[in-house]
Amino acid sequence: MKKVKLSKIAETLPAAVPFVGPETQERQRGSAFTARLGANENIFGPSPSVIETMADAARDTWMYGDPESYDLKAALAKHHGITPDCIVVGEGIDGLLGYLVRLVIDPGDAVVTSAGAYPTFNYHVNGFAGVLHSVPYRNDSEDPTALVDKAREVGAKLVYLANPDNPMGSWHRAGTIQAMIDALPDGTLLVLDEAYIETAPDDAAPQFDTTDPRVIRMRTFSKAYGMAGARVGYAICTPDLATAFNKVRNHFGMCRVSQAGALAALQDQPYLAEVKGKIATSRDRLADIARANGLTPLPSGTNFVTMDCGADGDFARKVLAALVDQGLFVRMPFVAPQDRCIRVSCGPEAEMDKFSDALPQALRTSREQG
Amino acid sequence: MKKVKLSKIAETLPAAVPFVGPETQERQRGSAFTARLGANENIFGPSPSVIETMADAARDTWMYGDPESYDLKAALAKHHGITPDCIVVGEGIDGLLGYLVRLVIDPGDAVVTSAGAYPTFNYHVNGFAGVLHSVPYRNDSEDPTALVDKAREVGAKLVYLANPDNPMGSWHRAGTIQAMIDALPDGTLLVLDEAYIETAPDDAAPQFDTTDPRVIRMRTFSKAYGMAGARVGYAICTPDLATAFNKVRNHFGMCRVSQAGALAALQDQPYLAEVKGKIATSRDRLADIARANGLTPLPSGTNFVTMDCGADGDFARKVLAALVDQGLFVRMPFVAPQDRCIRVSCGPEAEMDKFSDALPQALRTSREQG
Repeated sequence: MKKVKLSKIAETLPAAVPFVGPETQERQRGSAFTARLGANENIFGPSPSVIETMADAARDTWMYGDPESYDLKAALAKHHGITPDCIVVGEGIDGLLGYLVRLVIDPGDAVVTSAGAYPTFNYHVNGFAGVLHSVPYRNDSEDPTALVDKAREVGAKLVYLANPDNPMGSWHRAGTIQAMIDALPDGTLLVLDEAYIETAPDDAAPQFDTTDPRVIRMRTFSKAYGMAGARVGYAICTPDLATAFNKVRNHFGMCRVSQAGALAALQDQPYLAEVKGKIATSRDRLADIARANGLTPLPSGTNFVTMDCGADGDFARKVLAALVDQGLFVRMPFVAPQDRCIRVSCGPEAEMDKFSDALPQALRTSREQG
Repeated sequence: MKKVKLSKIAETLPAAVPFVGPETQERQRGSAFTARLGANENIFGPSPSVIETMADAARDTWMYGDPESYDLKAALAKHHGITPDCIVVGEGIDGLLGYLVRLVIDPGDAVVTSAGAYPTFNYHVNGFAGVLHSVPYRNDSEDPTALVDKAREVGAKLVYLANPDNPMGSWHRAGTIQAMIDALPDGTLLVLDEAYIETAPDDAAPQFDTTDPRVIRMRTFSKAYGMAGARVGYAICTPDLATAFNKVRNHFGMCRVSQAGALAALQDQPYLAEVKGKIATSRDRLADIARANGLTPLPSGTNFVTMDCGADGDFARKVLAALVDQGLFVRMPFVAPQDRCIRVSCGPEAEMDKFSDALPQALRTSREQG
């Protein structure tokens, strides 16, 4: 009884998980987290109309979702002032990144990203045997000039930039992003991950230009819209590239309840505005807590605050471990020198209080450990 | 502004849709279907406890789902008398088939299926540049002997068989399936699609043997459990192969609401038994309607009945079109000679009445067209 041989690429891949989920950590700890501040989920949650719509839609779950996500694409097109044929709806940005890499990357093709940027993008590039090249952050920001230079140097087909950035929270203005697009070498596609764009300053997003084949923009209902568990992301690009996703995507892959929920979320812009206000308040609170404990909060255009613990990665890892010990789910950047920081998601006062209560002890423990 | 070049495989692929969804047809028709009998969705729907659980879980949709689907796997393991490490939970069987093909198939690798079997499997094989070989149905059933012979002849890495079969509704007994597994050439993996197994006779499923590396079995909550829109499928195989899915799967791809719903569905086995009874009644009713109109219903181990229209594919396509014209969503096999049939999903009496009312006129129209 001989087992089937895996493909050449699959043979070389580790059975790796880009992120260990909080539930896994809870099972390992043997107890639940008291605050979930590590995955930049939106603890404020989605609009009540989303929850109501999803609850109603549960009755329709015997039906497949519309494989075209027609209604959602129509609403998104209207919202953004573009046409539906420039939009691809998919199973979160994670799913869309996977499809994109598969569409574009042959084994050995060059891809450029920042060292320490979104690991799931790297997971997909590795998964299709692309070759990752990285440039360092510059002043805790992704560095558009270095990314473009590297892309030119290695002949990259894809270059990844998140604006705002995760895990640092930093962002660039629209002009900087547009200049980056205009400087791209011929044949390089910018993957502009705008997962956190709704919580960024208004001048962070360039105008949409869906005639420009040099950029694909990724958006999501997971962050500001508070629907991480629903797996709804979308890409905005040329109609030509959007159509190409039909070559590889899982056509019946969208959950019907999620489609309905995302549509309701989009239609409740007043709620989004309200949540953005709450997130801004929470960012300020997190910054205050950081400063009160001798840490340096970094400016954030996202729903989290990254805090410089003032020493090296070993120290920050101790702080993180001590917070986790106290029942707080928190994460941190994993590449030096950004790994001197911890990253804490925004949330309601109760969660902020828990973090405020836990941080002094965590720092004490970490300092005592030397 | 040069656009990015697609990968070698993607360049060759059509931007094709394995199935046109009913919503697309409704938009083209300009009116909604009055009965949705074409996708073998379970119109009886999921357990009330599923709907209630999903509605409750909607409040938690701000959280990502557990990337390990730990609770669902634990419950499935208990239900099937196996261990959780033999189970892969994924975004429907469609999603799992895609991951499997990606894990195993290098460009040019041989794959065997039946001509006219599940198109989405073929979509994935084409999508990873596998080479499809097919054998014909035999007496409207997939032909295990011919499939194995062809697999040996072409050195196939994967051979696909659905038991029960879609689109014909036919099934094999467990002994036939086990004999097929035992006859597989070395290094060939049987993809045993058991999407419809819950509605098949009890002797259709072989015992689970998760030490056997020659077979992977695919199950779903989309059919008997009535949750097509939730996208929850699972594969049962060796722990070794199950672990390999972690190389390529979208780790955070499962909807949290769907995970909760599937767990609730599994826990309500009395409801499943009730629905199986209703499906059996509906199969009988569909067979009666077919016979009353001079068609021959084929035996079915599924939640649909395939009906021989007694002539060729052109005639059956006319009947289908006439039913669609009357507002009924129905599909049909697309390869001769199976395309002499139409395929109608089971459902409550109201839906059966609509089909009963529409069929005579559809046949009249089709016969008049000659």
